[in-house]
Amino acid sequence: MEQVREGSIDVDAALGRLRHMPFEDLGFAKVDHHRALRHGMPEVIFAMGKTPQQVVTIAGRLLENASNVLITRSDAATADYVTSRIQGGEYFPSSGAIRFWGDRTVKGKGTIAVVCAGTSDIPVAEEAQVTAEVMGNQVETIYDVGVAGIHRLMSNRERLTEARVIVVCAGMEGALPSVVGGLVSCPVIAVPTSVGYGASFHGLAALLGMLNSCASNVTVVNIDNGFGAGYVASLINRL
Amino acid sequence: MEQVREGSIDVDAALGRLRHMPFEDLGFAKVDHHRALRHGMPEVIFAMGKTPQQVVTIAGRLLENASNVLITRSDAATADYVTSRIQGGEYFPSSGAIRFWGDRTVKGKGTIAVVCAGTSDIPVAEEAQVTAEVMGNQVETIYDVGVAGIHRLMSNRERLTEARVIVVCAGMEGALPSVVGGLVSCPVIAVPTSVGYGASFHGLAALLGMLNSCASNVTVVNIDNGFGAGYVASLINRL
Amino acid sequence: MEQVREGSIDVDAALGRLRHMPFEDLGFAKVDHHRALRHGMPEVIFAMGKTPQQVVTIAGRLLENASNVLITRSDAATADYVTSRIQGGEYFPSSGAIRFWGDRTVKGKGTIAVVCAGTSDIPVAEEAQVTAEVMGNQVETIYDVGVAGIHRLMSNRERLTEARVIVVCAGMEGALPSVVGGLVSCPVIAVPTSVGYGASFHGLAALLGMLNSCASNVTVVNIDNGFGAGYVASLINRL
Amino acid sequence: MEQVREGSIDVDAALGRLRHMPFEDLGFAKVDHHRALRHGMPEVIFAMGKTPQQVVTIAGRLLENASNVLITRSDAATADYVTSRIQGGEYFPSSGAIRFWGDRTVKGKGTIAVVCAGTSDIPVAEEAQVTAEVMGNQVETIYDVGVAGIHRLMSNRERLTEARVIVVCAGMEGALPSVVGGLVSCPVIAVPTSVGYGASFHGLAALLGMLNSCASNVTVVNIDNGFGAGYVASLINRL
Amino acid sequence: MEQVREGSIDVDAALGRLRHMPFEDLGFAKVDHHRALRHGMPEVIFAMGKTPQQVVTIAGRLLENASNVLITRSDAATADYVTSRIQGGEYFPSSGAIRFWGDRTVKGKGTIAVVCAGTSDIPVAEEAQVTAEVMGNQVETIYDVGVAGIHRLMSNRERLTEARVIVVCAGMEGALPSVVGGLVSCPVIAVPTSVGYGASFHGLAALLGMLNSCASNVTVVNIDNGFGAGYVASLINRL
Amino acid sequence: MEQVREGSIDVDAALGRLRHMPFEDLGFAKVDHHRALRHGMPEVIFAMGKTPQQVVTIAGRLLENASNVLITRSDAATADYVTSRIQGGEYFPSSGAIRFWGDRTVKGKGTIAVVCAGTSDIPVAEEAQVTAEVMGNQVETIYDVGVAGIHRLMSNRERLTEARVIVVCAGMEGALPSVVGGLVSCPVIAVPTSVGYGASFHGLAALLGMLNSCASNVTVVNIDNGFGAGYVASLINRL
Amino acid sequence: MEQVREGSIDVDAALGRLRHMPFEDLGFAKVDHHRALRHGMPEVIFAMGKTPQQVVTIAGRLLENASNVLITRSDAATADYVTSRIQGGEYFPSSGAIRFWGDRTVKGKGTIAVVCAGTSDIPVAEEAQVTAEVMGNQVETIYDVGVAGIHRLMSNRERLTEARVIVVCAGMEGALPSVVGGLVSCPVIAVPTSVGYGASFHGLAALLGMLNSCASNVTVVNIDNGFGAGYVASLINRL
Amino acid sequence: MEQVREGSIDVDAALGRLRHMPFEDLGFAKVDHHRALRHGMPEVIFAMGKTPQQVVTIAGRLLENASNVLITRSDAATADYVTSRIQGGEYFPSSGAIRFWGDRTVKGKGTIAVVCAGTSDIPVAEEAQVTAEVMGNQVETIYDVGVAGIHRLMSNRERLTEARVIVVCAGMEGALPSVVGGLVSCPVIAVPTSVGYGASFHGLAALLGMLNSCASNVTVVNIDNGFGAGYVASLINRL
Repeated sequence: MEQVREGSIDVDAALGRLRHMPFEDLGFAKVDHHRALRHGMPEVIFAMGKTPQQVVTIAGRLLENASNVLITRSDAATADYVTSRIQGGEYFPSSGAIRFWGDRTVKGKGTIAVVCAGTSDIPVAEEAQVTAEVMGNQVETIYDVGVAGIHRLMSNRERLTEARVIVVCAGMEGALPSVVGGLVSCPVIAVPTSVGYGASFHGLAALLGMLNSCASNVTVVNIDNGFGAGYVASLINRL
Repeated sequence: MEQVREGSIDVDAALGRLRHMPFEDLGFAKVDHHRALRHGMPEVIFAMGKTPQQVVTIAGRLLENASNVLITRSDAATADYVTSRIQGGEYFPSSGAIRFWGDRTVKGKGTIAVVCAGTSDIPVAEEAQVTAEVMGNQVETIYDVGVAGIHRLMSNRERLTEARVIVVCAGMEGALPSVVGGLVSCPVIAVPTSVGYGASFHGLAALLGMLNSCASNVTVVNIDNGFGAGYVASLINRL
Repeated sequence: MEQVREGSIDVDAALGRLRHMPFEDLGFAKVDHHRALRHGMPEVIFAMGKTPQQVVTIAGRLLENASNVLITRSDAATADYVTSRIQGGEYFPSSGAIRFWGDRTVKGKGTIAVVCAGTSDIPVAEEAQVTAEVMGNQVETIYDVGVAGIHRLMSNRERLTEARVIVVCAGMEGALPSVVGGLVSCPVIAVPTSVGYGASFHGLAALLGMLNSCASNVTVVNIDNGFGAGYVASLINRL
Repeated sequence: MEQVREGSIDVDAALGRLRHMPFEDLGFAKVDHHRALRHGMPEVIFAMGKTPQQVVTIAGRLLENASNVLITRSDAATADYVTSRIQGGEYFPSSGAIRFWGDRTVKGKGTIAVVCAGTSDIPVAEEAQVTAEVMGNQVETIYDVGVAGIHRLMSNRERLTEARVIVVCAGMEGALPSVVGGLVSCPVIAVPTSVGYGASFHGLAALLGMLNSCASNVTVVNIDNGFGAGYVASLINRL
Repeated sequence: MEQVREGSIDVDAALGRLRHMPFEDLGFAKVDHHRALRHGMPEVIFAMGKTPQQVVTIAGRLLENASNVLITRSDAATADYVTSRIQGGEYFPSSGAIRFWGDRTVKGKGTIAVVCAGTSDIPVAEEAQVTAEVMGNQVETIYDVGVAGIHRLMSNRERLTEARVIVVCAGMEGALPSVVGGLVSCPVIAVPTSVGYGASFHGLAALLGMLNSCASNVTVVNIDNGFGAGYVASLINRL
Repeated sequence: MEQVREGSIDVDAALGRLRHMPFEDLGFAKVDHHRALRHGMPEVIFAMGKTPQQVVTIAGRLLENASNVLITRSDAATADYVTSRIQGGEYFPSSGAIRFWGDRTVKGKGTIAVVCAGTSDIPVAEEAQVTAEVMGNQVETIYDVGVAGIHRLMSNRERLTEARVIVVCAGMEGALPSVVGGLVSCPVIAVPTSVGYGASFHGLAALLGMLNSCASNVTVVNIDNGFGAGYVASLINRL
Repeated sequence: MEQVREGSIDVDAALGRLRHMPFEDLGFAKVDHHRALRHGMPEVIFAMGKTPQQVVTIAGRLLENASNVLITRSDAATADYVTSRIQGGEYFPSSGAIRFWGDRTVKGKGTIAVVCAGTSDIPVAEEAQVTAEVMGNQVETIYDVGVAGIHRLMSNRERLTEARVIVVCAGMEGALPSVVGGLVSCPVIAVPTSVGYGASFHGLAALLGMLNSCASNVTVVNIDNGFGAGYVASLINRL
Repeated sequence: MEQVREGSIDVDAALGRLRHMPFEDLGFAKVDHHRALRHGMPEVIFAMGKTPQQVVTIAGRLLENASNVLITRSDAATADYVTSRIQGGEYFPSSGAIRFWGDRTVKGKGTIAVVCAGTSDIPVAEEAQVTAEVMGNQVETIYDVGVAGIHRLMSNRERLTEARVIVVCAGMEGALPSVVGGLVSCPVIAVPTSVGYGASFHGLAALLGMLNSCASNVTVVNIDNGFGAGYVASLINRL
């Protein structure tokens, strides 16, 4: 039994020191330059729920320190506002991503495969792809290989096997990650999408399916969270 | 525009005649001998929620008119009570079915395949099998062919292709019906099972997955409803 | 106990062969001409979530090989775009279906009845009807026969009895399939619709009702999935 | 044990007679003039999900036989269309009701009180009021007497006590029917409304609250179903 | 605009007077003899969640003032304890009711029909029956008339038509109240039961079905709440 | 055992007195001037679901007796209508609050800290801030200190420790109240926000997280209910 | 705009200091003596999910430094084990609390009222009472005052008005906190209980009702969380 | 546009070859020796839902080819049966794991940290630990560091930073993965546990919280799925 007792004076001192950490307070946001240092990752702005002005202000600050900045879930108006005020942004209307990609050094050790079940899942897959690329990875995309036509998936089996980590996006019943997971031995990150209708309940069916996957190498992120999947895939691919 | 107006006297007369239909009133149950006539199907007793005495009374009445009677969801005590009082019953403890199978004429035109994803789904699959058999069908069972090891399913592809209708039982993510549905061109009846834990929510995940199947030839029955799947498969196989 | 052990070299070879299957890769979609061959069914495009351009491109490819093509869930803009670029399409605005119906050979052996509970359920019923027709079936429609006025249903009992398979669409409490199922001995495919308000929860009430039907000949498809019901009914009617 | 066995010939005859019941088939709707006869109630059209043309056609048919017709859930466009084509309609924009009230005979034996918890619940209460009035009842309305200011309710206690049946509409926590139910000895019909936000889940919180009411004289109808409450209150008030 | 302003002194006085109401405080319960006076109804004890001692104490107090007392949801142990300490109790093991029925005066003006869909729904129907009887009503029971065999219901149509108010208990899809509601013109109180499995979700499917009933004369009580249905039916039958 | 039996005459008298309580009946609303007296709190109007005219009428009445009036959830049109008709209103477009703040006496004994996890939560936090201020409190705001960058929160630890009560607004996983709760010893009022997407289910995830907080000093209000949190914080800060 | 940039070296140092905080590591638990210092509150052990041995070990450690220790949710076996090994424990079987109450100094400035709706809610109310008492408060209990008999509540209005903070426990529809909240001007902490059946869904109905309370002075804790309510009430009562 | 058209003869041949894959058919299970080859991972048996006999049979077959076999979710009876029939098994009663660990070669490149929020989460954490160890990893466990006492977590920050991948198990609000995720830059696998009560809904609250984590490096597995988390962590740690 380990004893870790110390005086409360130390504690207060330690907690006091915590105040002195490097971020920049914009009032409506605290821009965290330290995060990039700790994680070695590009900076990311989630645009949904922020005004165009807020997005531009944050992006401007970040670009002072970082060459790669990713803005996700940006609608057309915000994208117009951002790209007209800051040079060098690339807008992906289907996923709503804006990418500032100054440093294109490849940091990932292998290839990340981004797979999706149907044409309607492409926006989510694109968000994963854009994220993984801006974080320094080579990405292979394999689209429209849903499980009801299993030969379309099998036709891409070699590309799957060669990947170091795989992102699989699927709506409706969300079965694709289980099948992909069974074909490969690398980690599979499953992204349920809100594609579907009726009892898909905006992606709930796919989400539950993926959480209950009988393939042991599958983990799951939030519905439509292509960014998160691309981010974790990048972390894994650097290991 | 069709005109279907008639006097209300006729209506009352018509409704009055409806009283004279052939069933037998036991008080706690109305035994419907007419159903067998109309449907050309064996009689079925759903034992859950009935006392052993009620099950025996109903079964006794039915066996006076029918050579094949199926009792489903019978626990061991009820099964003991029934089989000790009525000769000829065969008890299947895993699914809880009791089968009186006097007339073994094959009425189905082809084979019904009963497929399940994992060993734990066998009780539900067994209920479908027992049902389809007592209704005059040849049944093929294909067990433990879940999608995470797709080659186990592929290894049985010929047997699937030869079936005239397929019942697929799966718990957890419930992905198997979609994959089977994509491999064959016959109707597939999907049975979500309550196998799983956590976010399977007692079969809800599998149910939602199957309802959202991207394979067009899939219809769905209630969670663990092997009987219903076997019954409809039998109806289709007689066509 | 069957032994199915073989070397892993064979396995890799077998999986390798799977790459060589007939589909056409458009990048955003993999058009599967093989599916029509295997299933003997017209080609279908689910328009929701696809751009008009994607729909036209896929439809164009399919029509090179198939005389009958069905596009479902098309909004007015997509329908305009499609019908102005490809000759011969028939648009059904209430259900959003576009039908190219070149080969009108009747392949179904009997009649498919499409029944709906209320006037508001007609769009879903229409999708089932259009699907079943383009797949070569004679279809009878019986509309507005909800269970609260049971005589309206009874008045159509003969037409129900004559059908070889029945599709029943109902929203709100979704009780109609149970009543229809009890009146006939053929398979009944129940389609819950999102018609209703409040505790209908966009079709959930009807869906749960149908899954719990006390009529044994009922299977269920997704909420508002008239297409799926019409498709499976067609498969059954060809048997 | 009662024996009710008769030949199946009788059954078929009886079912055959059921075809001859008095309704008028408009194709998209089966207009049921018999319902009014059986129930002694005005005719009602639920406009939601019907085209303005369908509503006018059905209303026209009904008004040939009935002096009182109620149309519920009509939007402004439908209301314009209907009232410009059929004379004598009174439109209630807050609830969307259109009332043709030719025969104003009072048939209810006492007063129906329609109570609501907050100003935002008035549209639902209005639907109940309009319904009860057109069905021949005297209606008292008591608005904005939610439970958080219990003295506002108490101030109206005499009017509550004098009612023969009470309709109580409430959103948010839906507690008002329980309190009203405890103050009176007559039947209380509770209508959960979709008023609220967040964890009200569009009326679910109020619905569950009312179903679990600790007052024994409370029954419940669907969320926002002012019509149903007014209808049943009218039935009770005629007894 | 009505003005109801008065000084706050009056308010405090009025609220102060509210303290002086007739109940008896047992510490763990406040026994409300006044309720019987106001409602003209027998006293009722909900046994679930109370100790046998608490039930006996409350029952003892109530029987000093009331000749009819109903205890609901009593398990066998509580029933033993109660009936061995207080004379005259009648125990109904299937529903768990204990009835002290001293005054058998009939107060209801007509007959209450208690209908149930299946044999497994009988316990809930029994609770409704026992309640309605102890409250002075003549009760007709019609059991096992579920909608999948509609002729069984039709055979009882006259008894339904003769009832002044009807209680309908059904589990699974809960469709029976809609069909009964369409056949009669009196109020129908629907009781969803927890009978079923899988997607019945312990009565949720039946509850939602009944709330969405297309029959206008249907109101709903909580799942398995036979008591509440019998209670309200009694209130209506006295009108 | 306390005996509180009195005659029913007293009861009726007491209940009768309850009618004479001070509110003003506008028909569509009962304006409760008494509430301000009892609670010592400014008057509040919840604008959602009320017409601009209703809001102006109620606000006008209230301002005759109260110097501070708060209107919440007002859209831009209502805000225009109100501020153009009544002088002195301050509109906060992000939260939709309109504040009439005549009496700026500080009544709270300490500081209320209003904390939010991300920039998108600011509208909810603003509602809490505006409420607490108009009720006479000094408010500190600490924004964008979500748990994934814990140093941003730690940097504000002193300000948290100095607060007498803390309001914490967070969407997505809603983890911030637990962490804040663990750092301080004062009451923490948690406000789940609807910020998020996918499996946040419009704030349900945050709500459930906060209800299950492992910090014992946390209580919860409705999703997005910044007003309620600011109100209760004010009550506590006056103690 | 505040600038808070500092070098990352400081950050690492600050985080490093955080390691030196006073707790005692038992392997399976980290006993936090510091918590009591910071919060000035008795130590609490949540027994559910811990072995009796673990509970005794932790309790033993805590009692070395604290005179008041509360164990919650202890089953009978754990209670036996604990009270036989550690002197001075008081067991409350209905709520499962074990209380070591050495220092009975009253620290709360006023009275805490603990109110519950029905007899079955007493276990939860008892947990709140035991908690508030061991934390140095005078507690008034008011039991069985549910809203369907509003005079029982009114009879206790003075005691409610005199409380400084009120805990209200209610199951079923959970309406009591709204009514209590409207009668008093102090903070009300609502505790939904799992008392009920059917559509109470184990306390969900009461929880949703309380979250949607129209009384502004109500906050909510988890279902059955009497401890949390008593704890926060104690914090408030010390202010 | 890539053209991948080939004749259907090739397709059938390719599919035919799929039959010849290496597994062993036990009837109730298809034992997949190939999986170990492909994944380079120990064999795993999920015992829940299998009979002890089935578990022993499968384990026996697997141990013929593999030195490391893991059985999860085994109850005490199954564990007795297995360990008495097969030598070398180590049983972990808290998680139900049985481990055959012949080959203890370390294959993971770094350390896997297994963290849990409370003592009650230890069984799930243990399953992750046992899994990761049998798959050749060095594992650090950090228990009872929930977010409400953030210094306990901070005290272990160095160990967290040194890990190559982290598994975080938490019930209740499930906030720990977000905080851990913000402190480290490696992948974090979050395991919601069913620890909690009331609105934790058997782990749903924790699951939703983790899916909505604002930390980008978090992915999620099923509720209580310690095995899955340990498995994926092992895959990542080998990269």
